[in-house]
Amino acid sequence: MDISRVNTLSYEDFVNNLGNVVEKCPIITAAVWSRRPFESLAALEAAINDFIDALPESGKEGILRCHPDLAGRDLQSGTLTRESREEQARVGLDTLTSVEVSRMARLNEEYKKRFGFPFVICARMNDKETILRQLSERLGNGLEVERARGVEEVKKICRLRLQGLVRNDANNKL
Amino acid sequence: MDISRVNTLSYEDFVNNLGNVVEKCPIITAAVWSRRPFESLAALEAAINDFIDALPESGKEGILRCHPDLAGRDLQSGTLTRESREEQARVGLDTLTSVEVSRMARLNEEYKKRFGFPFVICARMNDKETILRQLSERLGNGLEVERARGVEEVKKICRLRLQGLVRNDANNKL
Repeated sequence: MDISRVNTLSYEDFVNNLGNVVEKCPIITAAVWSRRPFESLAALEAAINDFIDALPESGKEGILRCHPDLAGRDLQSGTLTRESREEQARVGLDTLTSVEVSRMARLNEEYKKRFGFPFVICARMNDKETILRQLSERLGNGLEVERARGVEEVKKICRLRLQGLVRNDANNKL
Repeated sequence: MDISRVNTLSYEDFVNNLGNVVEKCPIITAAVWSRRPFESLAALEAAINDFIDALPESGKEGILRCHPDLAGRDLQSGTLTRESREEQARVGLDTLTSVEVSRMARLNEEYKKRFGFPFVICARMNDKETILRQLSERLGNGLEVERARGVEEVKKICRLRLQGLVRNDANNKL
């Protein structure tokens, strides 16, 4: 659908369609419905980003904590959201060797212990090598840097999810 | 479990156990994990309420929009969260007559059209007669009154869900 169609949706249809553009945070989509109509997909994305930016730091950490580990328990047990499953599969995180799975698990645990939230990265903008390297490198950052960095990655994930759901061509009506 | 056990939980276990005390808003539970340790169940509840109160009005509306209709589509189709299903069943909303279902549906639609969020009430503190009466009466309120009233009901629901999950007796350790 395009943005003009998005603007006609009831809050229920809006949340049903777009509720997981920020992982497991339908409240964010549901909140920005109040700001419709949106002039463009970019305006919808900006409204979401504004809402995130206005949250207290604990709320930003809350968003990060709603994200699954990469190549973690939820992937193994099949309990990822559809969006996360597709994103992790696209970069091959579902076909890691047992050595790679162990390394990822160890680094994820270390990261969570250090920061109190999971390592979040936009998988679709990386490959498994850069993800592992980033995870290792970002472990050396401070808490505030990583919280901000994680939120930036959430916004990149959100942008790609939105682009998969809403056509970016205002002339191309549904 | 009791509050001292709650205070030992990782953010993942905290969110897995308490993530739906505010319907479909695990971000709220995930955010208040930052404020542990909690002295008591009341302190945990207060942290959640503080987080909700600090949200912009759009965020409060977002919370309300994450709630299902009472005796609505999600109940008919079996897609309610476990908590909502139990709460709606407890007051008999799953065994309404077709006349009652129709009346509820009509009033719910009217309410959503008027306010842009669903009618939220703590079902367990009411019965189906008072729920229908309140729905009818609250339709006459203004937007700001209803938004605030809805949020107060969210907090009541949250309190009862918390009490079902966390023992209120600090001497009664798990």
